[in-house]
Amino acid sequence: MGGITDEERSAWAYLARVAEPPCSAVESLCAEIGPVAAAAAIRARSVPAGHESVLAATAGRAEIDTSAEDLEVADRIGARLITRDDAEWPGWPLLALSTADTSARGGEPLALWARGPRRLDDMASTAIALVGSRAASGYGEQVTSTLASGLAMEDWTVTSGGAYGIDGVAHRAALASGGPTMAVMACGIDRDYPAGHARLLAEIAEHGLVISEYPPGTTAAKHRFLTRNRLVAAMSDAVIVVEAGRRSGAANTAAWARKLGRPLGAVPGPVTSATSVGCHQMIADDLAQLVTDTRSVIALATPDGAAESGRGRPRATDGLAPEEQRVHDAIPGRGAVTIEEIAFSAGLDIATVRSALARMDVRGLIVNDSGTWRLA
Amino acid sequence: MGGITDEERSAWAYLARVAEPPCSAVESLCAEIGPVAAAAAIRARSVPAGHESVLAATAGRAEIDTSAEDLEVADRIGARLITRDDAEWPGWPLLALSTADTSARGGEPLALWARGPRRLDDMASTAIALVGSRAASGYGEQVTSTLASGLAMEDWTVTSGGAYGIDGVAHRAALASGGPTMAVMACGIDRDYPAGHARLLAEIAEHGLVISEYPPGTTAAKHRFLTRNRLVAAMSDAVIVVEAGRRSGAANTAAWARKLGRPLGAVPGPVTSATSVGCHQMIADDLAQLVTDTRSVIALATPDGAAESGRGRPRATDGLAPEEQRVHDAIPGRGAVTIEEIAFSAGLDIATVRSALARMDVRGLIVNDSGTWRLA
Repeated sequence: MGGITDEERSAWAYLARVAEPPCSAVESLCAEIGPVAAAAAIRARSVPAGHESVLAATAGRAEIDTSAEDLEVADRIGARLITRDDAEWPGWPLLALSTADTSARGGEPLALWARGPRRLDDMASTAIALVGSRAASGYGEQVTSTLASGLAMEDWTVTSGGAYGIDGVAHRAALASGGPTMAVMACGIDRDYPAGHARLLAEIAEHGLVISEYPPGTTAAKHRFLTRNRLVAAMSDAVIVVEAGRRSGAANTAAWARKLGRPLGAVPGPVTSATSVGCHQMIADDLAQLVTDTRSVIALATPDGAAESGRGRPRATDGLAPEEQRVHDAIPGRGAVTIEEIAFSAGLDIATVRSALARMDVRGLIVNDSGTWRLA
Repeated sequence: MGGITDEERSAWAYLARVAEPPCSAVESLCAEIGPVAAAAAIRARSVPAGHESVLAATAGRAEIDTSAEDLEVADRIGARLITRDDAEWPGWPLLALSTADTSARGGEPLALWARGPRRLDDMASTAIALVGSRAASGYGEQVTSTLASGLAMEDWTVTSGGAYGIDGVAHRAALASGGPTMAVMACGIDRDYPAGHARLLAEIAEHGLVISEYPPGTTAAKHRFLTRNRLVAAMSDAVIVVEAGRRSGAANTAAWARKLGRPLGAVPGPVTSATSVGCHQMIADDLAQLVTDTRSVIALATPDGAAESGRGRPRATDGLAPEEQRVHDAIPGRGAVTIEEIAFSAGLDIATVRSALARMDVRGLIVNDSGTWRLA
């Protein structure tokens, strides 16, 4: 898991439970004094000036420290706690949560619990969310299945919420095509919610990733679904609503997509179908782009296509200085390289590379992994 | 039929056949010297300077004068020739054909043959075109029927092309609801095209209107369908494509709608249906607005709604001078009034009213009917 100590991980586990996430007060305390000191300060009920709001946010849970048990449960079920200091932290996708106006239930997660063999940063780097009604129609299930298979075969992560209906069909079809799929949960990763999806969630955990910002044991609750939806949107290159009735939970994920600048697509259906009313409304109101097949979904999610339509996530490398761009280009897409290797590839001297790396590190574009560097 | 002499009507009938419509050369000759002189000039193969192109356009048919037979056939089947000098000429709807860039097959019709009890200007003043594939799906037929009934019950004219598939269902549903419906033909109004619609066309002629710019006996031909489509679009407040495959004739009507500034709507359907591919493409490319029901169709066709979405036909009275607006407001929606009555209602003197009427007459906003005036 490299790069972070057991003490730090325990501190993160404590912090992840001490306030209901997302908690900007705890987040900014950690950013200022680090997780170990932040945990100690919260336990001691004595925080640096300017951080007093942490005390109120953590009043109920400060004395409950289940970090050891939480990490033990995670370990037992083959799960892990991913912190922002870990190599697989999806810093760039989550960045939108800090920059967007996300006052209501927004903000980056402090840490993410994950269960499954895939790296979270890889999963989140090329992902499309397929979401929709739990009460899906046969038509909606058929379209979801076709889209998820098509995306999986093109190696896009199919992200969804693990629920009945569209979510479940999306995960299943991706699994059946041998593609990556990720379920973002509104409860602990050790809980089977919904119960009928126990087997599906186990399969996702075996081949893809089940993640949650809620500690093990946390039960699903209405406000957690809404909070969870922001992570689905943030960690996707596009959000596609396959079916949604007039009042569907998918509308909330769609709203997050728009707030976070993620391209939003909606699949049309028969105008006689109640489960397509929400999709038609989003398209008619110019909130979502009409998509019909894998090709149009990928076009929406792909930066070039997105740029054409004036939407989409900005590129991570927008605004790099010329020598930073050369350093960036010298780091391979996969795997880590030394400063010397970068300097050689980029044709720059070590000092210039070192200073460019430092600036790019701050921007979260690259990751220092035991002295070598790789793209974030 | 008032306002135009038999000699003039015969001249129009001759001119309507002497060149394949629309023919801008014949049109501008008529505009300059009137129909009787124009017909005489063409017969004599001697036209005023600047109008030489008329000779080439009429070379093949100048000596064939079937105007008497054409008017006789029309009379026998209860039809009539409507000219731009007739009260029911839909001058305002057709105006777009003169002002838009309609070089290819554009231009106003010289005259229109009409069969049916309804007034053409009334029919065209509040009309919505429902068009689509001849090879319609059951879904497409169901939606067309629902929309046409809904529109007919709100007293909108349901305009279409009399063809199999969407067109036929649209006319039938409008008739069944007792509403106005108009079939714009690509052949003479005395021909049953398609043959299987003989009975339907007779019913439309009995309760609504069957119209064509082609003289009696003209057979349907591919180029006439394309030319006919511009009239469907021009004489509608909105064009709705209910179903269209990848290559559908409805796409041509849709293109005319856009060229003429008519709001264009498209009905979505299952993405698995080949007959909805064209509709989805138009919506995805922002060429058409997604519509799902009668309410959204009427909103698209209604000037206020259209103004909101930045589309739609400009109002006839845009740009009227204040005293012209007062004169306009003084003329009732139905029925004709004298200059004295207008002057009284508008609170203006006779001279001012007379001069305002003259300007509005030129713009085609009002019609002089045996010394009285009514709105066009």
